[in-house]
Amino acid sequence: MKIPVAVLGATGSVGQRFVGLLAAHPWFEIRRLVASERSVGKPYAEAVDWMQSTPLPPSVAEIKLARATPEEADGCPLVFSSLDAGVAGAAESAFARAGAVVVSNAKSHRMSRNVPLLVPEVNADHLELAERQDHPGMILTNPNCSTIGLVLALKPLVDAFGVEAVSVVTMQALSGAGLPGVPGMRAVDNVVPFIAGEEEKIESESSKILGRFRRDRIEPADVSVSAHCNRVAVIDGHTQCVSVKMRRPARAEDVRKAWIEFTGEPQELGLPSAPVPPIHWLPEADAPQPRLHRNLGAGMAISVGRLRSCPLLDYRFVTLSHNTVRGAAGGALLVAELAVEKGCLTERSAGTRSRG
Amino acid sequence: MKIPVAVLGATGSVGQRFVGLLAAHPWFEIRRLVASERSVGKPYAEAVDWMQSTPLPPSVAEIKLARATPEEADGCPLVFSSLDAGVAGAAESAFARAGAVVVSNAKSHRMSRNVPLLVPEVNADHLELAERQDHPGMILTNPNCSTIGLVLALKPLVDAFGVEAVSVVTMQALSGAGLPGVPGMRAVDNVVPFIAGEEEKIESESSKILGRFRRDRIEPADVSVSAHCNRVAVIDGHTQCVSVKMRRPARAEDVRKAWIEFTGEPQELGLPSAPVPPIHWLPEADAPQPRLHRNLGAGMAISVGRLRSCPLLDYRFVTLSHNTVRGAAGGALLVAELAVEKGCLTERSAGTRSRG
Amino acid sequence: MKIPVAVLGATGSVGQRFVGLLAAHPWFEIRRLVASERSVGKPYAEAVDWMQSTPLPPSVAEIKLARATPEEADGCPLVFSSLDAGVAGAAESAFARAGAVVVSNAKSHRMSRNVPLLVPEVNADHLELAERQDHPGMILTNPNCSTIGLVLALKPLVDAFGVEAVSVVTMQALSGAGLPGVPGMRAVDNVVPFIAGEEEKIESESSKILGRFRRDRIEPADVSVSAHCNRVAVIDGHTQCVSVKMRRPARAEDVRKAWIEFTGEPQELGLPSAPVPPIHWLPEADAPQPRLHRNLGAGMAISVGRLRSCPLLDYRFVTLSHNTVRGAAGGALLVAELAVEKGCLTERSAGTRSRG
Amino acid sequence: MKIPVAVLGATGSVGQRFVGLLAAHPWFEIRRLVASERSVGKPYAEAVDWMQSTPLPPSVAEIKLARATPEEADGCPLVFSSLDAGVAGAAESAFARAGAVVVSNAKSHRMSRNVPLLVPEVNADHLELAERQDHPGMILTNPNCSTIGLVLALKPLVDAFGVEAVSVVTMQALSGAGLPGVPGMRAVDNVVPFIAGEEEKIESESSKILGRFRRDRIEPADVSVSAHCNRVAVIDGHTQCVSVKMRRPARAEDVRKAWIEFTGEPQELGLPSAPVPPIHWLPEADAPQPRLHRNLGAGMAISVGRLRSCPLLDYRFVTLSHNTVRGAAGGALLVAELAVEKGCLTERSAGTRSRG
Repeated sequence: MKIPVAVLGATGSVGQRFVGLLAAHPWFEIRRLVASERSVGKPYAEAVDWMQSTPLPPSVAEIKLARATPEEADGCPLVFSSLDAGVAGAAESAFARAGAVVVSNAKSHRMSRNVPLLVPEVNADHLELAERQDHPGMILTNPNCSTIGLVLALKPLVDAFGVEAVSVVTMQALSGAGLPGVPGMRAVDNVVPFIAGEEEKIESESSKILGRFRRDRIEPADVSVSAHCNRVAVIDGHTQCVSVKMRRPARAEDVRKAWIEFTGEPQELGLPSAPVPPIHWLPEADAPQPRLHRNLGAGMAISVGRLRSCPLLDYRFVTLSHNTVRGAAGGALLVAELAVEKGCLTERSAGTRSRG
Repeated sequence: MKIPVAVLGATGSVGQRFVGLLAAHPWFEIRRLVASERSVGKPYAEAVDWMQSTPLPPSVAEIKLARATPEEADGCPLVFSSLDAGVAGAAESAFARAGAVVVSNAKSHRMSRNVPLLVPEVNADHLELAERQDHPGMILTNPNCSTIGLVLALKPLVDAFGVEAVSVVTMQALSGAGLPGVPGMRAVDNVVPFIAGEEEKIESESSKILGRFRRDRIEPADVSVSAHCNRVAVIDGHTQCVSVKMRRPARAEDVRKAWIEFTGEPQELGLPSAPVPPIHWLPEADAPQPRLHRNLGAGMAISVGRLRSCPLLDYRFVTLSHNTVRGAAGGALLVAELAVEKGCLTERSAGTRSRG
Repeated sequence: MKIPVAVLGATGSVGQRFVGLLAAHPWFEIRRLVASERSVGKPYAEAVDWMQSTPLPPSVAEIKLARATPEEADGCPLVFSSLDAGVAGAAESAFARAGAVVVSNAKSHRMSRNVPLLVPEVNADHLELAERQDHPGMILTNPNCSTIGLVLALKPLVDAFGVEAVSVVTMQALSGAGLPGVPGMRAVDNVVPFIAGEEEKIESESSKILGRFRRDRIEPADVSVSAHCNRVAVIDGHTQCVSVKMRRPARAEDVRKAWIEFTGEPQELGLPSAPVPPIHWLPEADAPQPRLHRNLGAGMAISVGRLRSCPLLDYRFVTLSHNTVRGAAGGALLVAELAVEKGCLTERSAGTRSRG
Repeated sequence: MKIPVAVLGATGSVGQRFVGLLAAHPWFEIRRLVASERSVGKPYAEAVDWMQSTPLPPSVAEIKLARATPEEADGCPLVFSSLDAGVAGAAESAFARAGAVVVSNAKSHRMSRNVPLLVPEVNADHLELAERQDHPGMILTNPNCSTIGLVLALKPLVDAFGVEAVSVVTMQALSGAGLPGVPGMRAVDNVVPFIAGEEEKIESESSKILGRFRRDRIEPADVSVSAHCNRVAVIDGHTQCVSVKMRRPARAEDVRKAWIEFTGEPQELGLPSAPVPPIHWLPEADAPQPRLHRNLGAGMAISVGRLRSCPLLDYRFVTLSHNTVRGAAGGALLVAELAVEKGCLTERSAGTRSRG
């Protein structure tokens, strides 16, 4: 028997990805789709402006959209949230008070003291922090889309050599801005060198994710991060130019080896959404490129390439990740799978069913 | 009477810009258009695959394409070159030996000891270096398109505070790759995080341009530059995310003031292609953007925006320049105007006419 | 002395074009800029999300936005409207009742019995229809952006051979959808084969414009028009593939000649916005193209190319027009210039000043 | 045991699609990859400039590229060709003389008297024509990419109502132009209203495909086709605006029904690449769109939408097909599957193995 789940914000860009990925998920089954007031009661297929390149899954087309109240999610021990930041905080808390494990893609709770900010290959141990939350359910958060790709590329270097400073410039896809997002007239023949709040998120979230869980809190990593964020005319896939300063000497071949050999707890646990390998090292001179490499590992793996020394810091490279799969809905699914595997649903949620 | 000029490589992307700009130039007049062997003898309008958004100037449509030999440029004391690097070196030298002042957009001679690499607002005094060349004519070079925008943005900071280190990530336009350049399938829904040789050019050329002319040579500036170069789906306009470390403390308002008040020798001399002001400070949160700001100062001015402090170096900002106007043909015209104004043609060239 | 004018809907996409073109106009001078309630009182530069590739004209930056009431336009005998269809009808009528000559780009009054729908090169004589309007002012309308380009290309053929049937497929630019318009995610790597109401507008407006003014009304032209409309990833410039059936035999060389020799009343009157020639015949195999040819005649001329026989009708060709210049703001300016030249302002408006 | 196959022109755009699709094919197995002289001997992964959004299949990465001679394809009874038209004719004939069944995507043999031009859902019976070829092997051809989508959309209408005339305007994807294809500077912010030879192909091929096989030849269908072809900034997926004149009256609901209920011989035979259904009717007002619908049926199904009456002919609609899957490599695979199922390999080829 599959675990029934609810999706909050199901008609948005990330919500659509949740629906697409959940329709084929081996453990989870969509029971509730929640949207804003004006869509309540409409069948999903009618209310949504479907923008995915795969067809809307027939199994969800007829599901009637529900309100964002815990009562409506009755029977769903697991809730995925892609609500707008403006409403996410309160709504997610309400679901957690009602006993649900909420995996959120919104920024509202990310930096809260007792809320883990999870990239399962990087900091699966932070999950334990959620035990300290004071409601029957649990709020788990997924980082910002750019941060996820960045910390995945950094983690093997942190483990092998230590990382002291990071300079990153992003070229982010349009899908990251949701719907309607960036107007076509801003996207075509243009670059928008600003994404509100994005640089701050990358800088603060990276330290928390790479930080250490000590007794009762996360001690942020001692790493300086400087980010420039840009929007470019790409549908999916965030490309990042990164320079890093290591704490210990590193040879280029060892850096590559660290990426190639990297694996994480999701891979060891064999979680269904865990990509193998999580990081693809690409030797071509001009890789990675979003159109060619964003779908590696079904969009859950990141890619890295162009490793070379840096005149200012130690090394430079390019990394790419699929922003609405690994960087949003797919990343949140992996968090949920980790939580299920670690027993969070059985421990804390009412009405949970164990997975077959 | 206008000065008759020749354009080498007239059918290419930059060559077309030369033709467009020269057709309306107050001092210069196109007499010769030079192209590769297979186009020799054809009228320009027939041989060129015109890609500019302004019509092909009727005054040049019927000019028959000539060979790249100094004899063919007889009577043109001034020669603009946008030849491919493979043939530019030898051809430009031949014209210089024949007495012409050659202003080149190719990389072949840029780093040569006695060849000045000129951005007239930045290092007009380097022109004197050309006196040391051992042929009757003179070779003057225009930097790489990305370098020009970068050093123009840096120059006021170098003057006011000193600059010790620069980290730059470029998002470069398709027109910079010439014709046919980047295939459409690589351009749409994509970023190509590699441009052959470009990072090396930015790093080495910047030091030469910002260097000091001492007696008989250029002493490179003591500045570390790290560049990442990307190609994005933009027609014209290179956007650059820059972080800088200053040598002396700088308040943000003084940095802005340095840009706003900046002016150079071309502006003081009133050269026809000199933009006033050369640098536009843009206060909007999301400026500059290539489609909106590349044409400031008729494409000869650069723009800067988004000044903010940097967690790693001192300041971060975004700068934008038109790569085929300021960064190529227009920049070369400004170099030529400076050379004319400084008497280079009368001193060294045979057959020069003074401008009215 | 210039004629003071007001612009209704000044912050929108077409409104911005009005502002840009009026800032350099020899007869007209912007006195009032009118926008929606939430912008009233703000300086234009602050309220507008400027999307043009030329800078916001300094002369209008500080103009405070006013309400859309005739009182606010006091002293402006000429009013340009780019209001949304939802509010344009009532607002424009109010200005006309107050005595102004309103030149509107909205669809509200286009098909009204006594309102001329004007393309000055095509049907300048329809202007007289406005004499029959029952208010002190006058409402003149500019057709839909696609229609303008189409009827300009058809007019010489109508005059020379008669046109019985037209099949047209448009590929329209993003700027035609205004702001925010088509989301970037719909624009990149995509075609949207639908534009609400557009096909109906082309079909009905063409008949009215090409119709005959008989005593007291327009007798629609007897021409069948079938339109398919598509949105493509182009910033400016509507491309149209057209097949036509003539009433009389036509040789290809005569069709080309009809276009090349075509001229209209605006050209004869020497109106400031009249392009000379109004139609550019382009002989290249792959012309016209929006990026290369949309700016012919400063965006006021159309271009035609690829004339060839049609297996179904008689001839096929491609035509291109700049949708926000000729197809909107520039077209409306030309209408206003015609109205001024024909004495409409002196006859009917209160407070009109004659132009110098 | 799988049937060993060779791919001619394996490094090109369509060749890459062949490789991608064959790598996962249940009946066929790549044994030979053939490319131009300068690549011979190199491993495929090294010689190819892989442009697909799925990774290069590891099973072919190490295959060394061979020459285009029948000897090199020894042991491959089935050969797929995506050679350039310039060399395809002779090379394919040579393979057929050597006994191979050649399924070609090139235009060279398409209109030859004894060569069937196959869209298996439309004219599977034409396969018999190949029996009349005078060599031990067989040449089968796949139509031009635009033609395939068009005739698939027309076939149900031809069967139900007869089709007398077709007016079609295409908006074709960049991938159809191969590599390097359309320069990025021609693709971005532009439409190119011309594709060499394309209109002629659509017009002539449609008649042959929809024609009748009579005794010893194809009698072309009596249908007038007028085509305008355009290149737009889309990666994959050709969109076509179609108007049709029927021979017998048709109600809109019956037209839709004809599409919805359509099925063909590949579906009846259960061929592995046959999409079910072959045609998707999309009821949305703005469908189909290339980015959203090109992958229906794994890229092998076409979609139709926007059915409405036409003021000139009878009906208008929009159709979309994936140009490098259904319109090229995938279409050719379906042809090959039909040929295998019909016994062509066992009958005519030397060295053929029956499929398990």
